[in-house]
Formats: sequence, structure tokens, C-alpha cells
Amino acid sequence: MTTTESHPVRIIASTGPGQPDRTPELDELYRGFENELLVPLWTEIGDLMPPEPRSAARPHAWRWRNLLPLAERAGALVPVGRGGERRAIALANPGLGGAPYATPTLWAAIQYLGPRESAPVHRHTQNAFRFVVEGEGVWTVVDGDPVAMRRGDFLLTPGWRFHGHHNQSDAPMAWIDGLDIPFAHLTGSAFFEFGPDVVDDHSTPGRSRSERLWAHPGIAPVSAAGRPTPSSPIAAYRWEFTDRALDDQLALADEGYPGVVEPGHAAVRFTNPTTGGDVMPTIRAEFHRLRPGTRTRTRREVGSAVYQVFSGAGQVRVGDREWTVEHGDLFVVPSWQPLTIESDTGVDLFRFSDTPIFERLHQHRVRVEDGSEGVDR
Amino acid sequence: MTTTESHPVRIIASTGPGQPDRTPELDELYRGFENELLVPLWTEIGDLMPPEPRSAARPHAWRWRNLLPLAERAGALVPVGRGGERRAIALANPGLGGAPYATPTLWAAIQYLGPRESAPVHRHTQNAFRFVVEGEGVWTVVDGDPVAMRRGDFLLTPGWRFHGHHNQSDAPMAWIDGLDIPFAHLTGSAFFEFGPDVVDDHSTPGRSRSERLWAHPGIAPVSAAGRPTPSSPIAAYRWEFTDRALDDQLALADEGYPGVVEPGHAAVRFTNPTTGGDVMPTIRAEFHRLRPGTRTRTRREVGSAVYQVFSGAGQVRVGDREWTVEHGDLFVVPSWQPLTIESDTGVDLFRFSDTPIFERLHQHRVRVEDGSEGVDR
Amino acid sequence: MTTTESHPVRIIASTGPGQPDRTPELDELYRGFENELLVPLWTEIGDLMPPEPRSAARPHAWRWRNLLPLAERAGALVPVGRGGERRAIALANPGLGGAPYATPTLWAAIQYLGPRESAPVHRHTQNAFRFVVEGEGVWTVVDGDPVAMRRGDFLLTPGWRFHGHHNQSDAPMAWIDGLDIPFAHLTGSAFFEFGPDVVDDHSTPGRSRSERLWAHPGIAPVSAAGRPTPSSPIAAYRWEFTDRALDDQLALADEGYPGVVEPGHAAVRFTNPTTGGDVMPTIRAEFHRLRPGTRTRTRREVGSAVYQVFSGAGQVRVGDREWTVEHGDLFVVPSWQPLTIESDTGVDLFRFSDTPIFERLHQHRVRVEDGSEGVDR
Amino acid sequence: MTTTESHPVRIIASTGPGQPDRTPELDELYRGFENELLVPLWTEIGDLMPPEPRSAARPHAWRWRNLLPLAERAGALVPVGRGGERRAIALANPGLGGAPYATPTLWAAIQYLGPRESAPVHRHTQNAFRFVVEGEGVWTVVDGDPVAMRRGDFLLTPGWRFHGHHNQSDAPMAWIDGLDIPFAHLTGSAFFEFGPDVVDDHSTPGRSRSERLWAHPGIAPVSAAGRPTPSSPIAAYRWEFTDRALDDQLALADEGYPGVVEPGHAAVRFTNPTTGGDVMPTIRAEFHRLRPGTRTRTRREVGSAVYQVFSGAGQVRVGDREWTVEHGDLFVVPSWQPLTIESDTGVDLFRFSDTPIFERLHQHRVRVEDGSEGVDR
Repeated sequence: MTTTESHPVRIIASTGPGQPDRTPELDELYRGFENELLVPLWTEIGDLMPPEPRSAARPHAWRWRNLLPLAERAGALVPVGRGGERRAIALANPGLGGAPYATPTLWAAIQYLGPRESAPVHRHTQNAFRFVVEGEGVWTVVDGDPVAMRRGDFLLTPGWRFHGHHNQSDAPMAWIDGLDIPFAHLTGSAFFEFGPDVVDDHSTPGRSRSERLWAHPGIAPVSAAGRPTPSSPIAAYRWEFTDRALDDQLALADEGYPGVVEPGHAAVRFTNPTTGGDVMPTIRAEFHRLRPGTRTRTRREVGSAVYQVFSGAGQVRVGDREWTVEHGDLFVVPSWQPLTIESDTGVDLFRFSDTPIFERLHQHRVRVEDGSEGVDR
Repeated sequence: MTTTESHPVRIIASTGPGQPDRTPELDELYRGFENELLVPLWTEIGDLMPPEPRSAARPHAWRWRNLLPLAERAGALVPVGRGGERRAIALANPGLGGAPYATPTLWAAIQYLGPRESAPVHRHTQNAFRFVVEGEGVWTVVDGDPVAMRRGDFLLTPGWRFHGHHNQSDAPMAWIDGLDIPFAHLTGSAFFEFGPDVVDDHSTPGRSRSERLWAHPGIAPVSAAGRPTPSSPIAAYRWEFTDRALDDQLALADEGYPGVVEPGHAAVRFTNPTTGGDVMPTIRAEFHRLRPGTRTRTRREVGSAVYQVFSGAGQVRVGDREWTVEHGDLFVVPSWQPLTIESDTGVDLFRFSDTPIFERLHQHRVRVEDGSEGVDR
Repeated sequence: MTTTESHPVRIIASTGPGQPDRTPELDELYRGFENELLVPLWTEIGDLMPPEPRSAARPHAWRWRNLLPLAERAGALVPVGRGGERRAIALANPGLGGAPYATPTLWAAIQYLGPRESAPVHRHTQNAFRFVVEGEGVWTVVDGDPVAMRRGDFLLTPGWRFHGHHNQSDAPMAWIDGLDIPFAHLTGSAFFEFGPDVVDDHSTPGRSRSERLWAHPGIAPVSAAGRPTPSSPIAAYRWEFTDRALDDQLALADEGYPGVVEPGHAAVRFTNPTTGGDVMPTIRAEFHRLRPGTRTRTRREVGSAVYQVFSGAGQVRVGDREWTVEHGDLFVVPSWQPLTIESDTGVDLFRFSDTPIFERLHQHRVRVEDGSEGVDR
Repeated sequence: MTTTESHPVRIIASTGPGQPDRTPELDELYRGFENELLVPLWTEIGDLMPPEPRSAARPHAWRWRNLLPLAERAGALVPVGRGGERRAIALANPGLGGAPYATPTLWAAIQYLGPRESAPVHRHTQNAFRFVVEGEGVWTVVDGDPVAMRRGDFLLTPGWRFHGHHNQSDAPMAWIDGLDIPFAHLTGSAFFEFGPDVVDDHSTPGRSRSERLWAHPGIAPVSAAGRPTPSSPIAAYRWEFTDRALDDQLALADEGYPGVVEPGHAAVRFTNPTTGGDVMPTIRAEFHRLRPGTRTRTRREVGSAVYQVFSGAGQVRVGDREWTVEHGDLFVVPSWQPLTIESDTGVDLFRFSDTPIFERLHQHRVRVEDGSEGVDR
């Protein structure tokens, strides 16, 4: 985004309803505005305040079959270490000027770690998570707690926790990182700090200490209970629990009981057990399962989301774009773009979004095809 | 509590510091107060406003070896049905005037259901739970959802849910009920309504529908997520999870990590996954495990608690009372009475209390032997 | 409340629906219960768990013309000082066994201070307020902040604040105290501590420091903003503001706009500006104004309330009792008793209640004559 | 922000610590990233994740003596009406690419209405306020409630309320608008709707209905009490109250009592009386008064702020910029830029900021010269 300091403002006289006639006096006024770093509302309001949200971000899909080879190639050419910090390659939404932003608020990247490699320790106030679409063998050490990364797991690194990764296996591993980097960057609100250059704890426990304390259903340690924390204390949400919860929902539906989002569509949200709310203040994370032959109702929502196909395949329509997606593919749903997902053979999808931002600011709104509309819960 | 309507008030002239000299004029004044249904503060303040809480309730222990035979005998003599509603026998604290109150706020009873018996459906705004110290074979049906009752399970019936029980086995079953009946009665705040005379759903699923939707660690159904409910949607907290969480805490302590309440003392709290808070607005429920050779720090707390020994044995001191307790025994800890528990051989204890009332009203206070004191979290 | 320690429990065998037939075996069982300090539910349930709340408290009215002379007489006979602490004379509800309880949760007393007298400093966790139905000249000093007491003012002494009073005038002054003493006493939850025997700050500012910081509409000091406190930081809610707010509501109604509770009935609630909620965790305080010719809808509410007539007169019906009340008269509305107030000439009423307790515990319920019913806001 | 659709991504190979050596293979990899709309973290991390916030916005000051004549000139040349909607001229931060953004989240504009002019009715989910640095005679009608605009007043138009303005006087009037337009635009989260082309209620009450219901200190109407609303129900915070609250703080300081922010520096925050929090979910508004001879401690804060001098004059330092400011001048403090204000003769300052966004997302942090640092209140 290059601006010339001397004339950062350029006012284009508009024509049409509500616009003044173009005259030499008006031009002179507009030059006066420019000199004083001023911009009139009346020339901008159509773009600035449209009837419904118009995100600069565009619907787009990235293919795992293209991403993974590039990540592997980066594994060969780009070392991991202090300074570069992570071998992470971010999705750059085509509407966002080349910035490494999946959406105006969210970062999504594929991260790759070769056999026996490790990534240095740092912390930042940006909230982060990882989702493992395939593979295993890496441990992420979060504030000293080693957390195994395995297929289907959803793993948290909430803001300001030191963390580094190390691959204890002889195979490379790739996974997805999600963060609120764009939001923090646009608002100038984040801090970053280096930790040790190497992770020193190379132990490989099956369960992290956080899970041993907190990942029991409806149960909290008395030593910490009753004190809500902004982010979840659970470092890993394991696939076996997610999978079972989805199966349970569909089985309940078969028996005639509520639970699923809509017929054939089960969905769970990962939550912070100390509040019942989202796992982190800026990021919502969910897992969706569509049975074979299911088509979701078309849905618009304030805020943006990124999906990754975990297994199966489906047809996705976002606004005027449509794709067939399969294992590992990622796609972006910009704010208020209508989304429909359909699957003949069934599909499992991981989803994350910036919804908590809008819910906390009372800006959230949902419109579903069936006519229901929710505002500002 | 008998009062004569004509003279409900009796003022006893006090002597001592801060009291007026007794004179005929004072007596006449006091008779005037009585006629107008008035009571002076100055004669009552010592009792009404002591330096520290003095509960009318007394420390007391009830023995399972005495309770169970009486319950069995009631099983032979007292039918279960509409009107009496439940074959429940309540602990009557010796300091509370013969009322069926374990403490000024809490009800605790042993309930007994013979083979193939069932208890009729009703609902009430009082919050209720059951804890199963032994046995199995009964299902409690809560708003139509059949919930298996098994050894070690903690089961919820939050206020205003229809519920009935039925024993599907050929053996009798006894368990503990806990409610906030005394609190509701003293404050005149509860409603009650009959449902069908018999439970009609006699199915015997291993997991309730509530568990299938909600009893996955840190996971909520999207169809209900983000909407806090006053009470937990989990109808049953199963022993296998409680037991594992306690084991995990002790193992973490062995490895040098935090989690236990104090050395040798693991404890978990049952929570509402939609808020992270207590399971019900008036009742806190916890499970405590003391390793062999452990002695707890002496602790006082505003509010009252009832404990039941689940397994093992220990020595308990509450105020000036001391008992050796074992499987099934119940004891009461009145507000601000110092409590110490010690066990040579290890002990598992279920505990419930009225703490949420005082936390929500900013009246909670804790004082621990080591000098720490917490006020009004 | 006298109980014989040896036999605190007496079970009366009941007859009727749901009760077992009386037999020698049953009697023996009941004696067994008594020996073990047990009480069956089936004999008690009708009283313990009625369909709708039945408070032990009764509707009752106390007359200012009787109260004030007794308080004056106490002023002559009973000194104020350390030990007795306050020359306060409490309303004793005829249904509550002679205890100085206006309702099961609330204390209401007339307090009297002669010319130049003062009351010693103490603090307690019980929440307290004063309402001034007439007179002026006393300052209450709350944690060192002198607060003038004047006609119509509502004054706070939230829990655990040191406070003493001193009369700087040559006339006596009487006012009403409200506290949550019964609630604290029944639950054994309160602490008390003596301060200095005399108030040392005898300054007489027109506004307290708390008002200068906090009693500006919608405005908070930045030095304290954004940190909610359990109780309001405003020590005095002045009559001029209350009066104007009530006038404004009625004028708005005249102009056709909403604001009043119902036609002819304006009402304001005193609130904690740091939360927007009630002034103290256990006590709600309001002021109601009925225009001449107004009759309120009949209303039942969970929780109890005490009213004092500030000016004017009216007819009050509470359950099956009915009174004509006027300046200074107090009356009690027990939980769920239907209340109707009617006034030909207009009436101003101060009201306080224990509603925050029930709202926080999700036990609040309201039923209004017009058929509307609200549960658990 | 121009991007070529065909190549929206351009990766510049970096050199230095943590960067791979530039080789033909690396260049080929980067071209592969570009083709797939991918950007590596390692080339961007220095800019994306700096140790401390680096806002793209720059400190800048706008002079009232320049703004007002331009607004007057616009009054002569640019009509107000449907389509253009408002004669508002926005501050364009020199670091933000020419967009009409005072900061990355906040809009600040001078709005101008000639004698007898009016601005059409619309609503939008963006939160808005007005601050009146001088003049009077305009009424803003918010959801049908006419609100007088007078010198020193702070006026609210929370999101989704219909509003229009009309000047009832024979003099023009100019004031400042503040909104969260940039935040809503960047995140694609806002809705907009036209109302009537003209305001139909031309009445000119001195107080709005909202003030008559809500602008009494610590007092809420019972008909609406206990139901928190996302934004304040008070449409106008009048200067007389603001002024008095500031005077009171300084007088308290003179008497030795707390209240001011620091010596010589009084400050009040405008709050939502239903919650005690900020007036609107995205905007904080405050008024600051510095006594003659006062210098504030240097302070950094996450989030951005805009100040307008109401009266007096002072020296302001923001980062490496420094200005002398006086009546009507506006200046911007980007996120984490150190701010110091000093005044020899005393100065009154209106301030608004986006702090609620960061507090609600647990991203707020403050660092004050004296070493104190606050995180995540």
C-alpha cells in the first residue's frame, strides 16, 4: 500500500444522486480538503456504508494437492529458525491487495516441519491454533507443556503463551495454522517476544498436562475452578471426542431427537470450559459433518470464515463461486457471502471464524435461507 | 415452631455492656414494643450480629450402616406413589428444631426404590441431584430423557424439570438426594407441579441423550452453543470420568506439576459446560480424593456443606466434633466451622454445598489454616 | 426456638393420599428415624413443597403514629453506645416466631438519634441502607465520608464499610434502616467488627465525597471507571433527583410516551452505576408514585418486600389483609402474596425487597393480574 | 488500494537473519507461491508481528481554524440531502492511504448544517456520536426523540437507530461526528438503511425523552431496569454535568481525596447506565481537564484515540510529533504511540477511542511513564 506523503488524499468528484454539481468552485473546495487531509462523506458513502456488508475479501479455494507440494519444496529450500520463526505459508485472499490474509481478520497457513526438525520458541498476543488434517509425530510445547499433534486434533496456542514445535518422527508433517494476525495488524494491537532458540523439552506424552487437568467432560479441577480465563485451558481437542460427538448427534437425529444443525448436518463447537464460550476471544472453531445426500440451507453471516475439508468431498457455493472440494482443500467465506454446502458422499469439515469479535461488539447477524434472521444475541 | 398469635414477640431485657438499666419504665417500653410487634436491636445484637458466623446447624454424622437398614425397612412398610411422591428419608440437623434440614439451606436424604418399583413424575423449582454411593439398576427420566444411575455417578435434576424414577432390576437400590429445599422453604420461593403418575418411558439406555449431546470434553453442539443456561445440560457425570480426573491430578502432582488442592488431596468440581460455573444456581458439587497418609489443612468457609464417604475411611474433625467415617457415612459442616480430614488408608468423598448462593451475593469467605483468606471472589 | 437436644425430631404419622397406613411397625420405623435424626419426605412434602410459595411471614402493617412515640420514648430511656450499638427498633413479622425479622430475609427498623447524640462506629458484612421519611440533621460517616441525611434521601452502607452516625442538630431525628440481617442470620454468613467508639469527623458537607465522584448522570470518574463493584459507590440518592425522575415519567405518560410501570404509576429503581444493577447484592430499592385515582394491577412476586409511605395516602391489599396507610406507615408483602395499591389522592411509596437474591439464583418469578408472567429474567 | 487481479501477490525475497539464501530454486518456489495466492511467513514476519504495535496510522493534528472555513465553504457549495446524506468532512490520517479514516478503526468528521437546513433520516449499524465544540440550534432526532445539541454536549446515536438532524436556528452550526466506520468497513460488518427524506418532528424540547427517563444519577425507570442494553439509553450527556463532575474531582483533590487521574488532571468517562460500561460497544468517550501548569504522565495504550480541544490550550506530544493546540483543534493518537499533554493555562479536552474493542477481546494494554503497566483488565 504505497502512498505519497505529499498528497495522500485524492478526492474524486462523484456524479449522481446526492452529489453536488461539478464546478470550478467545487474542485477548489476538494483541493482544499486534500491539502488539509480531509475527505467528504458524500463522495464516499456509497462505498463506505453499503446497505449490506461488502467485504473486500473474495471467495476463494486453495487445493491441498497444490499446497502440500509447495510446502514440501519449501521444506527442502527454506530452513526453520530464529528470525523466520516458522515454515508457514499463508493463504493470500485475492481481494486483499497481496497481503497474507485469508480474510480481513484471519490468517490461515500451511506449516511444514521435516523429520527431526524443530521451530524456535516465541510468544505473541495474537491467538493461534493448529488443525491437523493428516499425519502425526510433532509435539508443540506450549508454556512448557508438550502437546502431541495427531490427525483430526484441534490445538490451541492462546495469546502470549510461549510455544515451539519439534518433530520427533522420521516423517515430515504438515498442518494448518489459524491466527488473528490480520486483525491485530490492521488495528496495531499486538506484541511479540522471542523465547529460547530451541524447545528444550523433547518428551512425547500422549496427553498434555492441560488435558489431564481439563479435558474431562463437565469437570474442573477445584484448584482452578470458578476463575474464568479469556481462552480455553485445554491445549488439545482430540479427534476421538470430536468424532464421537458428531456421531452421537446424527444418531440422536435418527432416533427423532434434536441436536443437529439441520437434517443430515451435525456440528460441534470447541469451547472454553471456564466460560462455555469460544476457545479464544477472537476465534471460533467448529467441526461439521454432512451425511451423504445432504445440502445445507444457504446461510449468510457477519464475519468471515475459513473451512478445510477433513475427509470426504462436496460441492461448495460461496457467493457467485462454486467448487468441488476434497481432503485438505481450504476455502474462504467472506462476510455476508451466502454459503451452501452439498455432499453426495458425505464430508467432514473443520471451520474457523472471527465470529467472537462481532458477537462481543454486538455486530453479529445471521440470515438463513429459511427466512430466520438473528441479530445481536 | 409454635407461636401464640396474640403475643408472638417476647423481649428479654438484657444486662451488661450497652444495655439500659432495667427499670419499670424500660419494662413498660418493652411491653409497648411487644404490643406493636417490635424488637429492639440492642437486646439482640449479640446473637444477631456475632463477630463471626454462628450457624444454628451443628456438626453431625449419620452412619450408612444405620441409614440403609431403615431405608430397607421403609421399603417394606411405605409404598411409593402419588402424594408421598418419593421414599426419601432426610437428615435432620440436631440444631435446626427437628426440621428435615441437613443445614439451613440444604436437604440431604437417602432414597430407596425396591425391585421393579417406580416413583411418580413431578417437577419443582428446587434444584436437585442424586449421588450413587452403591448399586445400579434405576433410571431417572428427566424431561423425558432416561438417565441410568450407577455407582459413583452424580446426576442432575435442575429446577422445574419433570422427573420420575423406575427400578428396572430385581434388586433394590438406594442413593442420596441433595436439594435446596430448606433455602426455598425459608424464603418462600418454590413452585411444585405433578406430572403423570407413572414414568412411561422404560427404556434403559447406557447414556442419556443429554450426555450424548453435551458430555464430550470442551465440545458443545453448535445448535445450542453460545446460549448459557442457569443449570448444566449434562444429566449425568459418570464415575469413570471423575475417577480418571482425580487420578490424573495425583499423577501430575507426582511429576511435580500443579493441579491438586494441596499435597495428597485431589479434587474436582462438577460444572455447567455452558458457563464454566456450578452445575446449578444454588448447589456446588465436588469429589475429593485423599491419598493414604494425607491430612487436609483446616479450612473454614461461609456456607454449609454435606459430605458422603464413597470409599475408604478417614478421621473428620468439624468444630469440636470428631468422627471416624467410612463407606456411605454422611456428615455436615455448618457455616464457618473449621474442617479437617485425615486418612491413613485413603478416602474418596463426595461433597455438596450451598456456596454458589454466597458467591453470587458476594458473601463468600474462606479462611485456611495456612493463613490465606479469600473474600468475595 | 426451643428444642430438646435428646429428641429434636418428632415425626407425626400423616394420613391421607400417599401416606402409609398407621401400624405398629410404621410407628416403630418412625421412632427409628427419630433416633437417627431422620425425617421422611412423605409426611412433610405437603408443607415443604407446596404448589406455590407459602411464606411463613404474614402481611402486616406498622403505624408511624405508634412507632415514632415508642422511638421517642426509647430516646429517653435507652442510651446509644458501644455494645447496643444503635437505638434501632425492628419490625417483627407476626409469622416469624417473635424474631426481629420483617420478612424471612429482611430487617426493617426505625432508628432514633437525639439532639447531638452519636452512634459508635462498626462494620458488618450485612448490607444496610437508610431511608429518611422526615427530618434532617444527622450525618452518617461511611468509611470516613460524611453523608448528610435529609428528607426523602436513600442512603447506602454496603457490607463491610465502617459507619457511625452523629446528630449535629438540636432536634431528634428518626429514620428507617433496612438490612439483610435475617438472611445472613439464617444462613450463618455474616461478620461484624467494632470500629472507634465515636465518629471523629463531625464535618457537615451538603454532598458526600461519594456523590461528588459518582452522582452525575451517566458519568464515571476515569480513575475508577470500568471496574464493577458489588455495591453502588453512591452513598446518597437525593430526594430532588428521585422526585424529578418520577415527575418526568408521569409527564412523559401525559405526552403519550412510555416510561411508567402502568397508567398513573411511576416508579424508579436505585442502581449501582458501575453495573446498572441493584444497589447492593441482596437488596433492591425503589420509589413508587401513584397519581390520584390510580389502582395498580394486582401483582405477585417471589421474594418479600417492605414499603413505607413517604407522603399521601392509599389503600393497600396484601393477600387477605387490607389497610389504609399514610405518612410513615410501613407494611410487609411476603413472597407470592398478591399486592394491590390504590389511592384517591395520590401516594408516594418507598419500597425495598430481597429480589436480587432470587434473580441471581434464577428463582425469581412474577405474576401480574393481566395474565403476564415472567420467569427467571 | 489497486491490485491487479492476475497477480495480486508479490513476494519480495528478503535477506538477513532467518531468511533463506536467494537462489534460482527459491525464486521458483516464490513464483509458485504467487501462482497459488500464497505468502510465506518468513519474509513478512518482521512487519506483521513486530515486538510492539506499529500502527499504520500517524500522529496528526487538524486545525479548527482551517476546518471550519472549509466546512462553511462546503455549506455554500454542497447541498445536504438523500444520497450524500450528510455534509460531513472526515479526517484522513496521512498513514492510511487516503481513506477517510482518522485511525484504522475510527471516523472523525466535522459536520455542518446551515440555518434552517436539515439532514435526511437513515440508520446504520455503525455506532455514532456527536460532540459540540461550539454553537447550538440543531436538534438530532433519534428514533423519533428530538435531542437538542448545545455547546459541550456529547450526544449518542448507537447502531441501527434512525436519525436525522434539523437546524431550527438562523445561524449555521458545526460539530464533530465520531463513528466506527473504518472498523466496520475493514471487517465488512455493517448494514445501512434509508428512512424518510425529511425529519418530520420539528419540536425543540430542551431535554430529550431519553434524558427524562435515564439522565438522573443512579436512577433507572423500573419499567426498563435490570435489562442491560448494548448501548446507553441516554441520548445526550449535557455539559453542565460534565463540567460539574470535573470541578468536583479537582476540588476533592484540593481537599486531599482521590478521584483525579493524576495531579492536576481530572477526567470523566461517559457510561451506559444499564451496564456501567462504555456508551457503545466500539467507542469510549471521555472528557479531560488539565489545570494550569499540569503535565500528564506519558502514556501508551493499545488502540487509537482522537482528541478535540474544547477550551484552553496546550502542548501535545504524540510519538515524535509535537503541536500546540487550542479551541477546536483535533489530533490523533495511534495505537501504542506515547502521549504527553501539558498546559500552562489549562485545557479541556474531549477524547474518544476504540478501547472497548480491545478490552472485550482481551487485547488491551497500557504502559505509563511511572512504570505501571496494565494488561487485559
